Amino acid sequence: MADSKVHRSFHPTPRTLMGPGPSDVHPRVLAAMAQPTIGHLDPEFIGLMEDIKSLLRYAFKTQNTLTLPLSAPGSAGMEAAFANLIEPGDKVVVCINGVFGMRMAENVRRMRGELVTIEDDWGTQVDPQKLRDTLAAHADTKVVAFVHAETSTGVCSDVAALCTIAREAGCLSIVDSVTALGGIELCVDAWQADVVYSGTQKCLSCPPGISLITFSDAAAERVKARNTAVQSWFLDLSLLMAYWQGDGGRTYHHTAPVNAMYGLHEALLMLHEEGLENAWQRHRAMHDLLFAGLTDLGLNFVVDAAYRLPQLNVVSVPEGVSEADVRTQLLEEFNLEIGAGLGVFAGKVWRIGLMGYAARAENVKLCVSSLQNLL
Amino acid sequence: MADSKVHRSFHPTPRTLMGPGPSDVHPRVLAAMAQPTIGHLDPEFIGLMEDIKSLLRYAFKTQNTLTLPLSAPGSAGMEAAFANLIEPGDKVVVCINGVFGMRMAENVRRMRGELVTIEDDWGTQVDPQKLRDTLAAHADTKVVAFVHAETSTGVCSDVAALCTIAREAGCLSIVDSVTALGGIELCVDAWQADVVYSGTQKCLSCPPGISLITFSDAAAERVKARNTAVQSWFLDLSLLMAYWQGDGGRTYHHTAPVNAMYGLHEALLMLHEEGLENAWQRHRAMHDLLFAGLTDLGLNFVVDAAYRLPQLNVVSVPEGVSEADVRTQLLEEFNLEIGAGLGVFAGKVWRIGLMGYAARAENVKLCVSSLQNLL
Repeated sequence: MADSKVHRSFHPTPRTLMGPGPSDVHPRVLAAMAQPTIGHLDPEFIGLMEDIKSLLRYAFKTQNTLTLPLSAPGSAGMEAAFANLIEPGDKVVVCINGVFGMRMAENVRRMRGELVTIEDDWGTQVDPQKLRDTLAAHADTKVVAFVHAETSTGVCSDVAALCTIAREAGCLSIVDSVTALGGIELCVDAWQADVVYSGTQKCLSCPPGISLITFSDAAAERVKARNTAVQSWFLDLSLLMAYWQGDGGRTYHHTAPVNAMYGLHEALLMLHEEGLENAWQRHRAMHDLLFAGLTDLGLNFVVDAAYRLPQLNVVSVPEGVSEADVRTQLLEEFNLEIGAGLGVFAGKVWRIGLMGYAARAENVKLCVSSLQNLL
Repeated sequence: MADSKVHRSFHPTPRTLMGPGPSDVHPRVLAAMAQPTIGHLDPEFIGLMEDIKSLLRYAFKTQNTLTLPLSAPGSAGMEAAFANLIEPGDKVVVCINGVFGMRMAENVRRMRGELVTIEDDWGTQVDPQKLRDTLAAHADTKVVAFVHAETSTGVCSDVAALCTIAREAGCLSIVDSVTALGGIELCVDAWQADVVYSGTQKCLSCPPGISLITFSDAAAERVKARNTAVQSWFLDLSLLMAYWQGDGGRTYHHTAPVNAMYGLHEALLMLHEEGLENAWQRHRAMHDLLFAGLTDLGLNFVVDAAYRLPQLNVVSVPEGVSEADVRTQLLEEFNLEIGAGLGVFAGKVWRIGLMGYAARAENVKLCVSSLQNLL
């Protein structure tokens, strides 16, 4: 095929990433990923896999055996949760208060589950009472699914409360913690959440591309007891575990993304070095700094402080200001990326992330001073 | 969760990768991946996406509009091909002559297609006459699937012939070219193949983690005309194209693995600089060198020269030699990785890859001299 186009090596302009993700990647993680590729069955790589699983258990605060990275982005983590837990005809209650709850509902449809939805307004939490009422009306529900940290709205829902309601109704829970892990409290075992997934590109200071998932024993039992094959071969937990398990030989499934795993390992190691609780505290402190700075500029935060995510700040665009123009100017003049609104928030808000390595004082100062300059 | 284990940064021992993949990654690709992460909606990243699509069309020798990378490894590329093309009840003929044909058959089952298999012995090609006969007996077949370069056996099948037979029977074709792309002739348009997928970790000198896929217009029409939703949200082509398309705004689907795309771009650029035909020639020349060297050592090649893959050499383990011990010694004493046999070949053969950056004279010499040393 003739190709007359001139192609050149790509060299990105370094940016400060304060959108909804990806967030700033730590230089240690970038350096780790540039190390020579080794075989995915190399004893050294198998040792790395073990260490990643151990560090993931630390990050999720769980002792779940089935805790592993998946070789695809966060949305594949979501699909893996639904594909493995749900069989055709299973009734699933999905709590929707933003884009990612809607995506969960779509996953249930694709798995041919029987979908029941609960809706809460964008910018508010999932209402525990609505879940209680819905489960009372749908006693045959098998799974309850909801989003911990809604990336589209900046809202934190009460995982412990919702998991308790689900469990008391005899349901397993699926929790989307993509934007939560490493940034705010997440205690998988203490909260008795059943399937929790996350991603690398938010509060872990790591590039996008890998999802992280953990299954409680009850969830693992449900997967084992399936009557039908998991729809996806690539995301079939039983095959994945045969590849990722530590005891004895590993069964080839796919080829793990070796260099991405180097990066994930370094990012998890850094979280371990900092300490999970310290990382949560840092995200909170940086949020307080950003809140003070933006409030001084007269900007309003959309989400109530009681359930506002510190790591994802949704701010109203002032009247008469072009939402998109400001973002473009921030990118072009300050190399600073912030996020646009999605769905009902499109054109009305900015989403300002403070995630992982991006959650540091110089970023907050850059963001506040740049916005001051433009507004 | 208490975690008393000591965790440290991971620094792999550099290896020479001459197994079935991943193969040696070029230093330029590793350096590209270590560049700062930018946003997946950044105008610079969107420019990169366009250039990757253009370079992919060059590599596949196609003008197919629907040519794109998928944010997951080669096995997800396989699943994407079957998930998008097949609807429940569709009759699919899968030609099996190794592990990856078996995996294709499993994909048809998971998509609830009606599976018809044709089997050929491991180490031999897919037999065009068997396909012709099978399609004559199953006139309602919709799709024919087979493997171009069988990684488990080192066999190259005749893609042009098999695609012609499929087309003449009114079927679309799915071709697994994971180990072929960049290493041996592959002419998607000239051969009128419908869906062809590949991976980054074989002949492209790039780490594992991304699959590459192209759909002919006829295949794209079939996807558009589906009566049922694609089972996988993550791999749904219509959603992926809305994210990857060039015209106008992009619709958010998932977050692309930004740094992996830097690496893929650099790898495709290097293939373009070398020239596709030159790359094929290099793989052939390195194979000839390896063949001469190993034959001198008295080793026998399992696959007939007429359809032997130059980039994946399957060699019988001499009698009285421990297959696994030799591989372990190669790794420990020479930092050289070669592959074991799979399935019916387990314990009986070694698989020696000469793929991408690994297909160079110093690697061949290292492999031959190391084996000479040990045997």
